[in-house]
Amino acid sequence: MAAISRIDLVRSELEKLDLDACLISQHHNIFYLTAFQGLSEQEREAWCVVTKEKIYLITDGRYIDSVDNSNLTIRELTAENALPKILSGIIKEEKVTSLGFEAEDLTYHEYSYFKKNAAVSLKETRRLVSGIREKKDDEEIAAITEACRIMDQCLKEVSGAISLGQTEREIALTIEWWLKQHGSDLAFDPIVAINEHAAIPHFNTKADGDTKVTAGAVILIDCGALNNHYMSDITRMLVVGKPTAEFSQAYQALLEAQEIAIQLLGEKQHYKNVDLMTRAFLEKKGYPSYAHSTGHGLGLEIHEGPKVALNSKDTIQPGHIVTIEPGIYLKGKFGIRIEDTVVIDETGQPRCLTLSPKALIPISV
Amino acid sequence: MAAISRIDLVRSELEKLDLDACLISQHHNIFYLTAFQGLSEQEREAWCVVTKEKIYLITDGRYIDSVDNSNLTIRELTAENALPKILSGIIKEEKVTSLGFEAEDLTYHEYSYFKKNAAVSLKETRRLVSGIREKKDDEEIAAITEACRIMDQCLKEVSGAISLGQTEREIALTIEWWLKQHGSDLAFDPIVAINEHAAIPHFNTKADGDTKVTAGAVILIDCGALNNHYMSDITRMLVVGKPTAEFSQAYQALLEAQEIAIQLLGEKQHYKNVDLMTRAFLEKKGYPSYAHSTGHGLGLEIHEGPKVALNSKDTIQPGHIVTIEPGIYLKGKFGIRIEDTVVIDETGQPRCLTLSPKALIPISV
Repeated sequence: MAAISRIDLVRSELEKLDLDACLISQHHNIFYLTAFQGLSEQEREAWCVVTKEKIYLITDGRYIDSVDNSNLTIRELTAENALPKILSGIIKEEKVTSLGFEAEDLTYHEYSYFKKNAAVSLKETRRLVSGIREKKDDEEIAAITEACRIMDQCLKEVSGAISLGQTEREIALTIEWWLKQHGSDLAFDPIVAINEHAAIPHFNTKADGDTKVTAGAVILIDCGALNNHYMSDITRMLVVGKPTAEFSQAYQALLEAQEIAIQLLGEKQHYKNVDLMTRAFLEKKGYPSYAHSTGHGLGLEIHEGPKVALNSKDTIQPGHIVTIEPGIYLKGKFGIRIEDTVVIDETGQPRCLTLSPKALIPISV
Repeated sequence: MAAISRIDLVRSELEKLDLDACLISQHHNIFYLTAFQGLSEQEREAWCVVTKEKIYLITDGRYIDSVDNSNLTIRELTAENALPKILSGIIKEEKVTSLGFEAEDLTYHEYSYFKKNAAVSLKETRRLVSGIREKKDDEEIAAITEACRIMDQCLKEVSGAISLGQTEREIALTIEWWLKQHGSDLAFDPIVAINEHAAIPHFNTKADGDTKVTAGAVILIDCGALNNHYMSDITRMLVVGKPTAEFSQAYQALLEAQEIAIQLLGEKQHYKNVDLMTRAFLEKKGYPSYAHSTGHGLGLEIHEGPKVALNSKDTIQPGHIVTIEPGIYLKGKFGIRIEDTVVIDETGQPRCLTLSPKALIPISV
């Protein structure tokens, strides 16, 4: 049922753009519309064409038998029946004169190839399906809520088991293993960063996570779970023993900033103002601005629309799910980030889906 | 040192194409040329421009401090200093008149955006860096050899621990955990497929791997390890107890086909003939052709050039590393694939880098 109404939304977008049909290439968008699931995010394993009458799924012999969706018209890619030929067939059959394509996904080479080999006028579209995906339906909100619940539980258990001498990489691996043992998966490679490593907003724990937990260490953990294709995202700070006064003060300022930012989601019209005011609040307290956005949408992808950033044009709308994650980074000293996954409810009010306590998490070792 | 000679190869390609410079966007190609490593394969975290004089690495505030390579000229992306502006600066400074771009990687939208905003003639290139990457240097061969050794060891230990009642997904998770515990990682999600599941060449173990190991089961395991950014790929078949005569016969035929295919790498000029003759051999024995290619190059990516396929134009050359993986798939019954990672040595002869025994692996439970 969900898939049908998503297709209706695509068709209504096509009508607005005066297009007869569109070619969908981005694999998350294909999954969203058809539930097709290949093996790889890196390779073209399927294509989807939405016309006024039909939804075509185009894939090859490796996957064709696994497609189980009676709403779809299947076309098989073979050496003799390559994509331009299949597209030309659909175009002819359904009298398509203008075919939209996803300009943010199709490569220049693919575009040139189709242009040369398929007899149809190709029209650039932007955010055609990604735009629709920004507003989550009930099924999606439920999946993300559950991904948040799983992550909260994991974070609680993993935090409780941290010990002196463990490296950042080992803690990250513990998170991964917990999720996989519980039928979930990583939404992204966790960032586990101790002391000055936490001052690097995108610290690469896999590559550089050799620092060990010591007495007095503050630990940033930024992680997310995958549940039924949907993701969660949370950052919490842990401390071994008593933190310094400088750290505690910064933590309180950031916590206040993050809670104000969440509240602003229910008050402002545009995400850019949430970003702007959160930065302003921290700057007024004497902290430097952070070199990343205040937040981002998430769902099938860890970073998707809307953007919670200074350059965002997006308006805050019911059904959006975004992270709110300001940070304070003092190079060579420490970094702090506090992050929640937040849904905008039907009345336009923000509600945190990640429910881990937001006070500094004490580690007893 | 290696990075320098790679850049020389790029510059000599540019000269052939009559280009002053090129913009590299594909993240594996950026890593290959600069050793830059971001966090995500899905997002544009850096760009590289190779000119006659310099190698520019362009990235943002999240990563700029982590770049540690004195051969590189760094440019920082900021809100005020977006990519077209940086590109325009480089173009002007270095008097670039024609800038190549990677047509197989740049999206149509990015292309249009640069075309509109950077004052330079953009020229489509294909396989500019990927083509160079096909021939592995000694450092790369060593990394892949080690990835093969790790995978062989993992396969041996994991096979030895398989027990009745384990699901396909659990075995896949055991492989993953073994690799991660040993400082390695997955090259791709392992395929573990029991009995008729193995007849699906790209069986999705994560999604559908609920079948349990039982007496008489045959188990296909297709997996690879990641070592220092480089990958290995192997497929072996395991059997619990005594296989059927039909299976044993098919296994012998396939093993013979796979060994002939490897041998042909040392005899033929073109990969397409290796593919053709391997299929012909199996068809003559009465088995159906397989719905995938006979093999593929691998290295930083699990699928890269050259192609070992009917439609391949690639010639067999020293330094190439490819998989050889013919299969027999009998729908509803069983599937068999035997796969090795093979290097073409300096004398043009094939040498297996995966060294796991190729006889059916007996599982005692």
